[in-house]
Amino acid sequence: MKKVILTGDRPTGPLHLGHYVGSLKNRVQLQNEYDEYIIIADMQALTDNFDNPQKVRDNILQVTLDYLAVGLDPKVTTIFIQSLVPQLAELTMYYMNLVTLARLQRNPTVKTEIKDKEMGAKLTVGFLTYPISQVADITAFKADLVPVGEDQLPMIEQTNEIVQTFNRIYGGDVLKETKALISETPRLIGTDGQSKMGKSLGNAIFLSDSSEVLAQKIKTMYTDPKHLRVEDPGVTEGNPVFEYLTVFDSDQAGLEKLKEQYRHGGLGDVQVKKRLLNVLEEFLAPIRKRREEFATDPAEVMKILKAGTARAEDRASKTLTEVRRAMKLDYFAK
Amino acid sequence: MKKVILTGDRPTGPLHLGHYVGSLKNRVQLQNEYDEYIIIADMQALTDNFDNPQKVRDNILQVTLDYLAVGLDPKVTTIFIQSLVPQLAELTMYYMNLVTLARLQRNPTVKTEIKDKEMGAKLTVGFLTYPISQVADITAFKADLVPVGEDQLPMIEQTNEIVQTFNRIYGGDVLKETKALISETPRLIGTDGQSKMGKSLGNAIFLSDSSEVLAQKIKTMYTDPKHLRVEDPGVTEGNPVFEYLTVFDSDQAGLEKLKEQYRHGGLGDVQVKKRLLNVLEEFLAPIRKRREEFATDPAEVMKILKAGTARAEDRASKTLTEVRRAMKLDYFAK
Repeated sequence: MKKVILTGDRPTGPLHLGHYVGSLKNRVQLQNEYDEYIIIADMQALTDNFDNPQKVRDNILQVTLDYLAVGLDPKVTTIFIQSLVPQLAELTMYYMNLVTLARLQRNPTVKTEIKDKEMGAKLTVGFLTYPISQVADITAFKADLVPVGEDQLPMIEQTNEIVQTFNRIYGGDVLKETKALISETPRLIGTDGQSKMGKSLGNAIFLSDSSEVLAQKIKTMYTDPKHLRVEDPGVTEGNPVFEYLTVFDSDQAGLEKLKEQYRHGGLGDVQVKKRLLNVLEEFLAPIRKRREEFATDPAEVMKILKAGTARAEDRASKTLTEVRRAMKLDYFAK
Repeated sequence: MKKVILTGDRPTGPLHLGHYVGSLKNRVQLQNEYDEYIIIADMQALTDNFDNPQKVRDNILQVTLDYLAVGLDPKVTTIFIQSLVPQLAELTMYYMNLVTLARLQRNPTVKTEIKDKEMGAKLTVGFLTYPISQVADITAFKADLVPVGEDQLPMIEQTNEIVQTFNRIYGGDVLKETKALISETPRLIGTDGQSKMGKSLGNAIFLSDSSEVLAQKIKTMYTDPKHLRVEDPGVTEGNPVFEYLTVFDSDQAGLEKLKEQYRHGGLGDVQVKKRLLNVLEEFLAPIRKRREEFATDPAEVMKILKAGTARAEDRASKTLTEVRRAMKLDYFAK
């Protein structure tokens, strides 16, 4: 039997090159080898967007279009909507009894987020407890692997703690421990040269960007602020134009020569940016085309989601039945 | 249309005289006038009994037998099991976004419980958040009234806060504010003279107690410790024998005379206890008989619960559909 991967996104915006490099590419490559579940985590998105459900709703379609455009195949990969698998809410309720408030408040990932988002006294119970909801997502599908960044390792640790506690208290091996599949790709920096491309940071190139938008974004991209004239020597490291070329340019030998030239002086930003535009246009054009094709029939895309969600519910329902039996809550079982 | 009442019990032990006086009697009296939903709150019971699910499971049947024995009629009253109405878990997840951790920690009822149960660092997320789950119970059935004691008023306040926040953010009047139906009956004290009869305090007379157990419990009941000899004057107030007679004795005029005599001296505990035994035996005998009849066919009782749970799920499902529509989560709705 194929091993199970659980991964996904919060539907809070369209996906960008950073998502592609960091996860989508991998998902496409692994989808035939693994039994892949991709969760569109709308309930999690609502924990800090509860006052803007329209945004979450709209982005479910957008994210799914991105998935289909990059080549995720709904025939082999189960793409589903979190809130429509009610078993996840039920599992969350049971797991909440197995975690202390103190333990939850020690979770470094959540601690950092709470600080970054300046939640303070406004911290909602929903946001604080979303890691428990994630444990429900992971365990419902008995995921063998969860692709994460280094910063999300505490999430895997929390999952396995709950799995161990559950199995110890309720007996047997109903729940399955999971493993982190740590991405080897470094994070893609933003077009502004900042450390991370983020959908709400204004420094992202989206998979859905048109040729015009792409050209405009590249034109105004950050490079080396000290590289003022063509003849000035420039820095290629941390320079997003070169970073993107390193990832997407198929002619890496030619690129090495260009880098050399840039470092010594004599190569203008305009020329390098032109190369990047060509490279990214070549990469994005087929994605954009597929995306537009799917976008002409949103009802068909929703059908794909509906089928995936039914498949996911079926799987989660099996786990919940086992969980309820172990917890002696199968009152009406034959 | 009849107004809706939501009430219920945690299935952690059989019900006793205190439950009868404080709530069961009222439920029976109101069941035809109101649309009554009685929740057997197993998920809530698990929040502080998660390591003993067998206890919770066993007491579901026991509590239901108590309900049927006192005259709750499953044809007019909906008796249901909380964990088998998954919509309640879903609603809880959505409401958790509308409550801050700080607000939850200020809830006086929960604060007192956490202190009384000496939870400290062991406080689980499940226990801390059970008030939100109660809001789901109340709002799922759009309860007009919730019978509570004075100490549970913060629960009603919390409910209406969430209802207001939900309706403000998601628009309209999907959720309904509820009102406390404050019990006028003072709490029944325990057989040990302590302020409250409690199922786990060893001071309760259960509805299911046999004649022998009842006689034994009355025999060893606390009275007035200074009333040593028959001729000594005794105190009737706070004396559980007289307190119970006040509630259950149909001859209140005769009882008044007895009280007088006891206060002045000349009336022995044995004689008063004999009267109490007769009174309670008369009260409990028919309840016990009905209980035993139902207990001979547990499968039939489970069928009653199954039917009630299906009815409750149907009602909760309607509310969840409205909630999801208001939250724009009705992705696949026509």
